[in-house]
Amino acid sequence: MENVLIAGQWREANASSSFQAANPATREVLAAEFPVSTWEDCNEALDAAAAAAVALRQVSGEQIATFLEAYAEQIEANADAIVDLAHAETAYPKETRLAGGELPRTTNQLRQAAAAARDGSWALPTIDTATGIRSVYGAIGPVCVFGPNNFPLAFGSASGGDFAAAIAAGNPVIAKANSSHPGTTKLFAECAQRAAEATGMPAGMVQLIYRTSHADGERLVSDIRVGATGYTGSRHAGLKLKQAADLAGKPIYLELSSVNPVAILPGALSERGEEIAEEFTGSCLMGTGQFCTNPGLVMLLAGESTETFIKAITDKFAAAPVGTLLSEGVEKSLATNLQVLVDAGAELLVGNTAADDGRFCYANTLLKVTAEQFLADPEVMQTEAFGNSSLLLVADTVDQLVQVVASLEGNLTGCIYSSSEGADDEAYDQIGGEMRVKVGRLLNDKMPTGVAVSAAMNHGGPFPATGHPAFTAVGIPGALLRFGMLQCYDNVRSHRLPGVLQDASPNGTVWRSVDGAWTQANIS
Amino acid sequence: MENVLIAGQWREANASSSFQAANPATREVLAAEFPVSTWEDCNEALDAAAAAAVALRQVSGEQIATFLEAYAEQIEANADAIVDLAHAETAYPKETRLAGGELPRTTNQLRQAAAAARDGSWALPTIDTATGIRSVYGAIGPVCVFGPNNFPLAFGSASGGDFAAAIAAGNPVIAKANSSHPGTTKLFAECAQRAAEATGMPAGMVQLIYRTSHADGERLVSDIRVGATGYTGSRHAGLKLKQAADLAGKPIYLELSSVNPVAILPGALSERGEEIAEEFTGSCLMGTGQFCTNPGLVMLLAGESTETFIKAITDKFAAAPVGTLLSEGVEKSLATNLQVLVDAGAELLVGNTAADDGRFCYANTLLKVTAEQFLADPEVMQTEAFGNSSLLLVADTVDQLVQVVASLEGNLTGCIYSSSEGADDEAYDQIGGEMRVKVGRLLNDKMPTGVAVSAAMNHGGPFPATGHPAFTAVGIPGALLRFGMLQCYDNVRSHRLPGVLQDASPNGTVWRSVDGAWTQANIS
Repeated sequence: MENVLIAGQWREANASSSFQAANPATREVLAAEFPVSTWEDCNEALDAAAAAAVALRQVSGEQIATFLEAYAEQIEANADAIVDLAHAETAYPKETRLAGGELPRTTNQLRQAAAAARDGSWALPTIDTATGIRSVYGAIGPVCVFGPNNFPLAFGSASGGDFAAAIAAGNPVIAKANSSHPGTTKLFAECAQRAAEATGMPAGMVQLIYRTSHADGERLVSDIRVGATGYTGSRHAGLKLKQAADLAGKPIYLELSSVNPVAILPGALSERGEEIAEEFTGSCLMGTGQFCTNPGLVMLLAGESTETFIKAITDKFAAAPVGTLLSEGVEKSLATNLQVLVDAGAELLVGNTAADDGRFCYANTLLKVTAEQFLADPEVMQTEAFGNSSLLLVADTVDQLVQVVASLEGNLTGCIYSSSEGADDEAYDQIGGEMRVKVGRLLNDKMPTGVAVSAAMNHGGPFPATGHPAFTAVGIPGALLRFGMLQCYDNVRSHRLPGVLQDASPNGTVWRSVDGAWTQANIS
Repeated sequence: MENVLIAGQWREANASSSFQAANPATREVLAAEFPVSTWEDCNEALDAAAAAAVALRQVSGEQIATFLEAYAEQIEANADAIVDLAHAETAYPKETRLAGGELPRTTNQLRQAAAAARDGSWALPTIDTATGIRSVYGAIGPVCVFGPNNFPLAFGSASGGDFAAAIAAGNPVIAKANSSHPGTTKLFAECAQRAAEATGMPAGMVQLIYRTSHADGERLVSDIRVGATGYTGSRHAGLKLKQAADLAGKPIYLELSSVNPVAILPGALSERGEEIAEEFTGSCLMGTGQFCTNPGLVMLLAGESTETFIKAITDKFAAAPVGTLLSEGVEKSLATNLQVLVDAGAELLVGNTAADDGRFCYANTLLKVTAEQFLADPEVMQTEAFGNSSLLLVADTVDQLVQVVASLEGNLTGCIYSSSEGADDEAYDQIGGEMRVKVGRLLNDKMPTGVAVSAAMNHGGPFPATGHPAFTAVGIPGALLRFGMLQCYDNVRSHRLPGVLQDASPNGTVWRSVDGAWTQANIS
């Protein structure tokens, strides 16, 4: 049985049972056994995290940056092992996805987080010289991170976006591995622990548990010792955790579900229908469609260019190789959710059938409904079929499209393709305003699957895409704010202020809002 | 029966019953009758607010600023009537409190909110020129405001901090009046409605309901048409609303309860004990102690200077005039909560008895416990006795004080008085770190009751002081962020971007983070 990492020690778990991951490409169970921890492990991890949070009060952003950079180097030094194991646990291709994509994204993200911790601008230091009041975001306390199945590296619970943001904001992390890639998560935690020891971080800075009971998970996120939780995963489990955390008044940031509506207007299709068909197919089938921002609902207006487009993507979906899915669970829920849509009246265009039975997979699938059908039961029609599938919606009028958008739940993204020469501008104006308030990121003429790690990114959106529409899970420094509490100092003696709020800038680079103006200068 | 304001019309309520406010100075019921609205009123207000939110997409920050400024002028033109009625409903003194204090604070706040709406910097516009991604906080949607009893003007539901912040962020407001001053709230809503009409705001920009059933209140804050809620009031009612809103994934910002710990160290007492006794008494009895930031827990170290201090404040509390409380409810809950503390073993120093029975009031009260007593049951010992009272805690050691602070729930404020010459510095270092993470605003050598409307203010703090430790209810522009959703634009065509995200600055004053640097310049 693999060890857990608690209070700086790799030790035997207090396990109630164990589990094993499977190789999605072969359906074979992998050898390593991982413990399901009891509350005893959680409790010890919480104590250690609380102690680490106290110790971190004396640790500077510069020191945290050093840790994050040392960790990125550790990952690079162990890249082959990480990529090999992640490939075995997820079946993602090594070269195009893991080694060439997620791994550099992960180390880049850690280094951006390091730069943010070193610089301090993320914390929005605000100084009012007239009143002697100064404020800044400070560490919120121990952060639990529940990572998703679909990004074993770049959103791994001990390596990814939530982890980097929580640490850079000055918090210890209790990582709960995703059950589909526990071995990969363990390799990351080993790298992190080595880096933490080498850079003098407190024991308990990074801890790892693989799995708990649902009840213990709920107890964990609502524990008094916790500052906040970051969760990416299934809607059902996420909402249970949210309810527990909310009752205890503990912030929990969730990324739950999203169908990512894409409206493709007739002018755009007339102009470059074949090009868009290619883009859509690539975006929807990439990674076997297992992206949070997968285009799961394509909204079209009835007409000839739309018919041609539907024919084109149906052919492409039929011809495209069927990718491997991450787990038996993903395979099953894809089939189940597609059936929900079919039962609700969706027409099958292609797929919706088992594929190769030697691995986890399901045929590339497109379904189609009319706007009337969708509007008759928008809740069911928004069932997310996570994987290599999409639902096409054909409306007769722009007004219907506006009604469809108005009926949508909150989504991470929404996109509108329109003619480059103005033919769709009137329709855009009607749809765009309603789409704007339903999604975190509005795109034009571009599929939503690329999520750049940009300061301006919003990987967030209204409920149930996330738990709070003011925060982003991707993008540095923005993502750090989720793990900060606003700390105001009123008449506090100068030498007792954190460095970033003292008159002299601690580093000359931090941006501070001084009497309403942003500046990098000292206060004179 | 007084009319409600729904969809721009003052009309008869759909009332299930009615209520009247009382004059706290005489215990007499006031003549005006106010309706308890049924869900029908709420439903119509929600429809109108949703329509207003759509209309507001076309309304600029400049136009909203014009409305807020017109509203401030309306308030000034009607100041006498507002002050007279607020005096009758709250018994707050006209000159020192209402006309001279809260009213100018209210209009000043509205004008600051106007400036923030006009300028746009509050929304943290962020531009990444390399990726073409741009983001900014935009309106979150209709905001319900539940105002508290203790600030009829400056935190009134149709006039105060939450109102100003929600409107400035571009949202319509549904105001739920506080039952202790419904008439005052109506006067404000009349001023707001006149200003809204004069400045071309959509109908439904400001709406007013006086009271609903608890069930309808919960339904209101969790309705799909709502963007967010601001609530200031009792912990019990607030937590019920929070639970309903959380389940629906609707942000709710709460200000619930706070004992506002003040540690007064021996060096400070030796140096200026009499001065601090005066400050404390003034702060604790001002407004009959009915401030969210009232110093309700005073932490002291056993010793001679502490004994002298306790004697001094006990004498002052005995000698000070007994102020009037806001309602019979406040009077009763003060007596009840003090009794909880006495039952838990607190020693009575002065007060804890009925006072003048011709008005709502209760004797100025001080209770005392040891640190051991407090630590034996910290939950009960943190019972908030809202009003003209405070609990003194005497510890034997600094370690005990640290334990007491560590046992505290989240608070709005925490304060430490220490010697100006370094005698208390070691104790400060021990207590300060723990206090920092328990409170939103940390003070030195200053009582917490003054809450400046400063950009650096945090009137917030960890649960249960508020519902989320990242947000402030006072301070502009910070308070506006509660009512914004993060809106990202990815590859969106330039002319479709909001003005504040286009290359040319819309006004030359808005601060934007462009490629990591804050600037007021155009993008070249």
